[in-house]
Amino acid sequence: MSPVSVAFDPRDPDFRSRVQASFARQQIMTTLHAELIELEPGKVSIRMPFNQAMTQQHGYLHAGIIGTIADSACGYAAFSLMPAGAAVLSVEYKLNLLAPAEGQEFIATGQVLKPGRTLTVCDGEVIALSNNQQSRIASMTATMMTVTGRDIQD
Amino acid sequence: MSPVSVAFDPRDPDFRSRVQASFARQQIMTTLHAELIELEPGKVSIRMPFNQAMTQQHGYLHAGIIGTIADSACGYAAFSLMPAGAAVLSVEYKLNLLAPAEGQEFIATGQVLKPGRTLTVCDGEVIALSNNQQSRIASMTATMMTVTGRDIQD
Amino acid sequence: MSPVSVAFDPRDPDFRSRVQASFARQQIMTTLHAELIELEPGKVSIRMPFNQAMTQQHGYLHAGIIGTIADSACGYAAFSLMPAGAAVLSVEYKLNLLAPAEGQEFIATGQVLKPGRTLTVCDGEVIALSNNQQSRIASMTATMMTVTGRDIQD
Amino acid sequence: MSPVSVAFDPRDPDFRSRVQASFARQQIMTTLHAELIELEPGKVSIRMPFNQAMTQQHGYLHAGIIGTIADSACGYAAFSLMPAGAAVLSVEYKLNLLAPAEGQEFIATGQVLKPGRTLTVCDGEVIALSNNQQSRIASMTATMMTVTGRDIQD
Repeated sequence: MSPVSVAFDPRDPDFRSRVQASFARQQIMTTLHAELIELEPGKVSIRMPFNQAMTQQHGYLHAGIIGTIADSACGYAAFSLMPAGAAVLSVEYKLNLLAPAEGQEFIATGQVLKPGRTLTVCDGEVIALSNNQQSRIASMTATMMTVTGRDIQD
Repeated sequence: MSPVSVAFDPRDPDFRSRVQASFARQQIMTTLHAELIELEPGKVSIRMPFNQAMTQQHGYLHAGIIGTIADSACGYAAFSLMPAGAAVLSVEYKLNLLAPAEGQEFIATGQVLKPGRTLTVCDGEVIALSNNQQSRIASMTATMMTVTGRDIQD
Repeated sequence: MSPVSVAFDPRDPDFRSRVQASFARQQIMTTLHAELIELEPGKVSIRMPFNQAMTQQHGYLHAGIIGTIADSACGYAAFSLMPAGAAVLSVEYKLNLLAPAEGQEFIATGQVLKPGRTLTVCDGEVIALSNNQQSRIASMTATMMTVTGRDIQD
Repeated sequence: MSPVSVAFDPRDPDFRSRVQASFARQQIMTTLHAELIELEPGKVSIRMPFNQAMTQQHGYLHAGIIGTIADSACGYAAFSLMPAGAAVLSVEYKLNLLAPAEGQEFIATGQVLKPGRTLTVCDGEVIALSNNQQSRIASMTATMMTVTGRDIQD
């Protein structure tokens, strides 16, 4: 889907430690036993195991939890390209559920589609792994905002 | 926003117990200490308290958890109008975050905008309550699907 | 859907003439024979007649044209609350098609849900009128951006 | 963005003539001087020239027209995989505007992300061409519905 492919230069050379520190402050990531497994300029992947406590009525992971890891992956993909001192906020996201969220673990990947001074648009997807088979279960588009000069610390 | 207002007749007179039973099977609702506080044909509200374990990097409730309760509220609003024996699945949802999710508790309300045989479109919103002040923090549009004759039990 | 209802004060007392002038510059509105039929702070309605030249394969108005008038209604609802000298740009919108776009005329209404310094979130809906019966055929959520100090003139 | 890549087998070997015939019935495509320039199983591209009559207040193509060609590209990408005798309807789409729609011509490409018996999810993007330079100006996610056994002819 990308005839116009772009590699991104991070504005902050120290982006990795900045993303890792912010991720570590997301208490929900600890609650979900989620971990950062990929962190490149404009691209972040998060893995979490299946979690019975987070299921919906059919025993699948709740769509909102799929949205949670996809939103964080997109947010940190955007954040990796922001200048030092900036904070990131989710403006909006859309999630399409492509298949029930069953599997032993789930990997959400966020990628920057279009970085901007104020707004950054990201694509996200979530893969389920089941007995070493992977299937795409969700697709996200998210708009992230760069926040600077406020009292929010990231 | 509703010059075309409609009251909905549930196709299943026993819709309340059906929604309540399905809600009780969503383990994530128990995990979030969430409860059904309103259940009318085509309209459902869910309340949850602030939860430190579900926060993002600034200490607010993670946008994905806001999405979780809004998605369940929309899903059960749709489900309340479905025939007995049907199951509900989320096809897609879009969430706009209007303000940081801070407050002592959060109420998500889902309302059916357009019911359909296969697809039902719902509006959702999430309100934060802080010292008896309420503010709207999120808005959702969700598409729900009626599933019948499959091995999914609701 | 609005327990938190708000009336908006326009920051520019001359907002009406500013919106009307910008609307008049949208050549597509002339092409669609569309007209502004309501213009209040944070609320705008646009009416257009059925247009054979804008139809899809079944003879209904194309979803993209429904999106066009809903996007303009949302954009001008946001623009009505912006300060003098600002321009408005669409960041993103989501459109749910609730019924085929058949009818003699169509009215799109945009309303500000949450105004902001940079971003304004709007709800939109489109009504079809057929033999004096009206039905809601589409629902939109749109994010609009206030642009200032650039070379864009509105 | 696609670790899970899939090639699609059309269920109807005659899908090309079916898509072309339906495209020819979209009067808006004629109005926009739009043409099908790519038609593969699950992938469709549509090109249209800049059109002064379809512009917004700054002289760019209106976002709704960008949405129109992206929606048709996504719809026909989905339609290419549907069985003979089926019709396609847009359920919903979300459009992110990445840059102003300026250029001599515009190419919208729709690709099936997940085909389904009832619903098909598609990714779309729109490229602007200006003096042989191309830039991505919009990104879409769309949900399309297979309609059979009704009085709609495609």
